[in-house]
Amino acid sequence: MPSYILKLKCPDKPGIVASISQGLLELDSNILRNSEYRDEASQIFTMRCVFEVNIETEEQVSEKLQSRISELGADVTIRNKDTPKKALIMVSKFDHCLLDIFYRIKSGELNLEIAAVVSNHPDLKQVTEQNGFTFKHIPVTADNKEAAEQELRTIIDEHQVEFVTLARYMQILSPSFCSDYSGKIINIHHSFLPGFKGADPYQQAHDRGVKLIGATAHYVTAELDEGPIIAQDVTPVSHLETKTEMATLGRDVERVVLSKAIKAHCEDRIFSLGNRTIVFQ
Amino acid sequence: MPSYILKLKCPDKPGIVASISQGLLELDSNILRNSEYRDEASQIFTMRCVFEVNIETEEQVSEKLQSRISELGADVTIRNKDTPKKALIMVSKFDHCLLDIFYRIKSGELNLEIAAVVSNHPDLKQVTEQNGFTFKHIPVTADNKEAAEQELRTIIDEHQVEFVTLARYMQILSPSFCSDYSGKIINIHHSFLPGFKGADPYQQAHDRGVKLIGATAHYVTAELDEGPIIAQDVTPVSHLETKTEMATLGRDVERVVLSKAIKAHCEDRIFSLGNRTIVFQ
Amino acid sequence: MPSYILKLKCPDKPGIVASISQGLLELDSNILRNSEYRDEASQIFTMRCVFEVNIETEEQVSEKLQSRISELGADVTIRNKDTPKKALIMVSKFDHCLLDIFYRIKSGELNLEIAAVVSNHPDLKQVTEQNGFTFKHIPVTADNKEAAEQELRTIIDEHQVEFVTLARYMQILSPSFCSDYSGKIINIHHSFLPGFKGADPYQQAHDRGVKLIGATAHYVTAELDEGPIIAQDVTPVSHLETKTEMATLGRDVERVVLSKAIKAHCEDRIFSLGNRTIVFQ
Amino acid sequence: MPSYILKLKCPDKPGIVASISQGLLELDSNILRNSEYRDEASQIFTMRCVFEVNIETEEQVSEKLQSRISELGADVTIRNKDTPKKALIMVSKFDHCLLDIFYRIKSGELNLEIAAVVSNHPDLKQVTEQNGFTFKHIPVTADNKEAAEQELRTIIDEHQVEFVTLARYMQILSPSFCSDYSGKIINIHHSFLPGFKGADPYQQAHDRGVKLIGATAHYVTAELDEGPIIAQDVTPVSHLETKTEMATLGRDVERVVLSKAIKAHCEDRIFSLGNRTIVFQ
Repeated sequence: MPSYILKLKCPDKPGIVASISQGLLELDSNILRNSEYRDEASQIFTMRCVFEVNIETEEQVSEKLQSRISELGADVTIRNKDTPKKALIMVSKFDHCLLDIFYRIKSGELNLEIAAVVSNHPDLKQVTEQNGFTFKHIPVTADNKEAAEQELRTIIDEHQVEFVTLARYMQILSPSFCSDYSGKIINIHHSFLPGFKGADPYQQAHDRGVKLIGATAHYVTAELDEGPIIAQDVTPVSHLETKTEMATLGRDVERVVLSKAIKAHCEDRIFSLGNRTIVFQ
Repeated sequence: MPSYILKLKCPDKPGIVASISQGLLELDSNILRNSEYRDEASQIFTMRCVFEVNIETEEQVSEKLQSRISELGADVTIRNKDTPKKALIMVSKFDHCLLDIFYRIKSGELNLEIAAVVSNHPDLKQVTEQNGFTFKHIPVTADNKEAAEQELRTIIDEHQVEFVTLARYMQILSPSFCSDYSGKIINIHHSFLPGFKGADPYQQAHDRGVKLIGATAHYVTAELDEGPIIAQDVTPVSHLETKTEMATLGRDVERVVLSKAIKAHCEDRIFSLGNRTIVFQ
Repeated sequence: MPSYILKLKCPDKPGIVASISQGLLELDSNILRNSEYRDEASQIFTMRCVFEVNIETEEQVSEKLQSRISELGADVTIRNKDTPKKALIMVSKFDHCLLDIFYRIKSGELNLEIAAVVSNHPDLKQVTEQNGFTFKHIPVTADNKEAAEQELRTIIDEHQVEFVTLARYMQILSPSFCSDYSGKIINIHHSFLPGFKGADPYQQAHDRGVKLIGATAHYVTAELDEGPIIAQDVTPVSHLETKTEMATLGRDVERVVLSKAIKAHCEDRIFSLGNRTIVFQ
Repeated sequence: MPSYILKLKCPDKPGIVASISQGLLELDSNILRNSEYRDEASQIFTMRCVFEVNIETEEQVSEKLQSRISELGADVTIRNKDTPKKALIMVSKFDHCLLDIFYRIKSGELNLEIAAVVSNHPDLKQVTEQNGFTFKHIPVTADNKEAAEQELRTIIDEHQVEFVTLARYMQILSPSFCSDYSGKIINIHHSFLPGFKGADPYQQAHDRGVKLIGATAHYVTAELDEGPIIAQDVTPVSHLETKTEMATLGRDVERVVLSKAIKAHCEDRIFSLGNRTIVFQ
C-alpha cells in the first residue's frame, strides 16, 4: 500500500486535525507518523502527516481531501513517500559536498533525482559524468550574470526542477532569482552562522581564534547568508589547526549538515515561518 | 485557558487520530502540539497531544473523552500541563545529581514536587533540609532489605508518589519492588550503557581506555542496568584523565542526562515499548 | 615531593627546551608532562612543563632557573601545582554560574580561592554567605562607574587577587580597567561568539532561528565580546524552544564552559597570542 | 628544511628530555611541537617531538642521536614528516570507509600510500581500480583461512607494508596474525565499544534502544573487539530510526572515526600502553 506525506500550513483554529484526520479516515487511510506544531507568535499551525492509503496517485488523494483543505484555507502538499524530489546541484570547484550527495543517492539515503549539475567552472565535469549525471558549464562573469541566470531558469523549467542545492557554489545569485525561488534554494555555508558570513569563513574563524568551527545549511534569500537556517553542526578545533586544517575538518561537517538539510527538504519536513524554520523529525 | 497533555497508547488501527481530535473539537479545544508514532514491529500506536480547553479539571476532560477512549481500547492519561509530578528522590552519598534537581525545581525548569528525599546514609540530610525538602534516612543492610523496602512503599503510598528517581542511589532494589513500580523508577547510571554495567563504571572505563565517557538514564527493571533507556550522553576523555578526573567530568553528563529524563517523564513524553522507549520531543 | 608548573613564552630559537630541561635535570627534577608549541605566524615558542622536584618553594625553584630564563629572554612563571589561584568572582542576579563555581571548589575540581564575590546587586549575598564566602555589594550607576571600579581595584590589591571571573556580570568594565587587568579577567558570554555579541543573545538566537546555541569563555578586552576565546561549546535547539527554554538549556553550557576556562587558567594552561589563545590539554 | 617526528617510549627517569633536546640542539635542530607524558601506573615515559633540522635522511638523524637513545634504553622511531606510511586496506563489501580513505588521500588529508586493497569479495575491485589503486581478491572460506593469511603475509612483506587498516573487513583474523602484527592493524568497529561487540552491532543497538550510536577505531588483538581504542565518536538516534537508518547514520561516524585513527597513526601520535593508548594531539 503506498504511503504519502501530507504537509499542511494554515492560520491556527480549532478543528484542523479533526478535519484532516476525518478526511483520511474516510479514505480508509492509516496514519503512521504525525507531527503538529502551533507557532505562538504567528498563530500559524503546521502539520506533517505520513499515512498509508490504498489510492494510487498523489492527485487522487489530493482531490479527495480538497474540500477540507479549501475550507481550512490551508497551504497543503501531498506527496508519495517514494517519489524522489528533482534537484539541480550547483558547484564551483570544491567536490566534497557533490561527491557526498552522489554517494548518498546511490546508497539510497537521499531520495533525490539530479536533473543536472551546474557549475561556473568546468573542473567537476568529469567526476559528475563518471557518476552518471549530467553536467552543464555555465560560466559567470561580471558581464554575463543575467544571461547565466536566464540559462539556469531555462534548465529549471525544462527539467521541472523542484529545488536547487548550492553545494559550495561560490557565486552570489541575484535578488530576483533568490526571490523567485524562495524556499527552493538550499545553501551550505562553511561557518556556524551568524558568525563569519561572507568570504573565507575558515580564515575568519582562524583569525578570531574560535574553539569550534561549524557549517550551516539554509534557504537562500536575497540577503547573503541571512536566510532561514535548516541545520547546523560544529566540530572542535584548537590552536593547533592551521586555516587549511580547519577547512579539512570543516568538510566533514559541511557534508553531513548539507545532506541532513537536503534529506529533510526531500522528506517534506521543513516549514519556513518568516526567517525561522520548523523541521519535524 | 488551561492546557492539558493527553498520552495515548493502543493497538494501531485507522481512525485513532480522527476519533480523539473529533472528541477534542467537540469540547472546543485547540491542539497546540501533537506527536504520533506507530511502531511497526509491535503495531502499537502512541500519541502525545497538547491542547487547550476551557474545562477546569483533568477528571472532567477525561470523562468527556471516555467513550472514545474505551472504544479504542486505549491506555490514556490526561494531565494538566501545570500540575507537577510528585516524586521520591533516592540518594546515597553523592550530592551532585540531588543538588542539580533542587536547582532545576527552583529555577522552574522541572515541574516536580519532591515528596521526600530518601537515603540509606545520613550524609545528605542537612543539604536537603537547607533546600527546604524532607529527608528520610532508611538504612539498608543485608538483613533489613525487605523491611527497608516496606518502609519505602509506605512513604510512596502515604504521599501518593508518582515516580521515584534514583539520583545515584547505590543499593539494588528487589525484583518485586522493580516490578511493582515498573515504568515508575528512573535511574542514572554513570556509563554509556550497555557498556560498563554494574559497579564502578569509571574505573571500568579507565581500564578499557575508552575515548568518551557517558551516562544513561533508564527505567529500572529487575535486571540490573538493563531497563528501557530514556536519555544518554557522552563527553570526550583522553589518556590524560585519571579515574577520578573521569568521574569529575562524568558528573556534568550525569546531571544533564538525569534531568533530561526527569523532565521528559514529568512532561509525559515517554512511552515504553518492551525494552525500548519512545520519547517525543 | 612537590610538583610545579612552569609556563614559558619567548621568541623561538633552537635550544629553549634543551636549556630548561637541562636546568631541571640539574635540580634532580623529573618531568611528568610537557607541552610545547611554536606559533608559526608570530615565531613565539610556548611551553607548559609539569615536573616534580625536591625543593620547597616556587621562589627557590625560580631562582635556580633564573639565569637560563634570563638568557632566553623568556616570560616565565613557576607555580606549585597545589597552590590555589586567588580569584574575585563578579555577578549580577543570575546565580547558576556562581553556584556551579562554589560546587566545583568544594568538590576539589577547581583549585581556586575566592577572595570575594562582588555584585552590583544585593540578590546573591545570602547564597554566597551560606556557602561560606565573602560578599561585597558595589552598586553601579551611570554616575558612580569610576568610583565603583576604584573600589574593585582596592579589593583586588588588598586581597592580592590574581584574576577576576565575570560569572554573568552584566555591567561593562571600562577600557582602562580591562587594559590594566589584561589577561586576568575571564568572562562567560552566553552565545557562540562571534555570533550574538552584546545584549540578550538568547533572544537574538531565537530570532535568527539557529539550530545550536552556545557559550563562550574569553579574556576581557576593551572591545565588548571580542577578547581571546578560551573555551566554547554548544547544545542543539529546535523550533520547539522558546527564548526562555533556550536560556534554560544554555545555562548548562555556560556552567561547563566557564568552569573549563577557569580550570585551564588556574592550571596555567593558557597563553594569549594576540587575539588567540593556546590552551594546552 | 625537512621536519622529523621523533617518537620515544622508555621507562621513566630524570633527564630524558634533557638528553634528547640536547642531542637535537647539537644538530642545530629546532623543536616545533613537543608532547610528553609520564604514565603513572606503568612509570613509562612517552614523547612525540616534531623538529626541523638541516639533515637529509631519517637514518642520518637516527644515527646522530643513537648513543643517547641507547643510553636511555628507549624505543624510538624518527621519521620524516612528509614520508607517507605504506598501508594495506582490507574490505569486504561495504565501500563507505574505503571511498572515504581514497578521498582523504587525494585531498592531501591523509599522508598514506596504499600498497593494495585486499578483499575477501570481488565487489570493490572496480571502484578501487577506478581510483587508481591495486585490488587483490583473496577469498576466505572455512578451509583456506591459513592459506589466505599466508597470502596476506606475502603481500605485506613484498610491499613493505607498515600497517593494515580493516575498513569494514568482515572476517576474523587468526590470533597468530594479530599477534605478529600487533599495533599494526587498525579496525573500525561500528559500535561504541565495549557495547555491542561482535556481529551486527546496529541490530544490537536497535534492540537495546540506545539513544546514541557510535563507532570505535582500535588496534586489533587476538580478542575480538578488545584491542586498544584509538578513537571513538557517537551520533544521536531516537525511536524513529530503523536499524537500516541507524546503519546509514553510523556510516558518517565510522568514516570520521576511522580516518582520525589512521591520521593519528600515520602522524606517529599513538603509543600503546597495555590495553590503553596515548594519542598526542
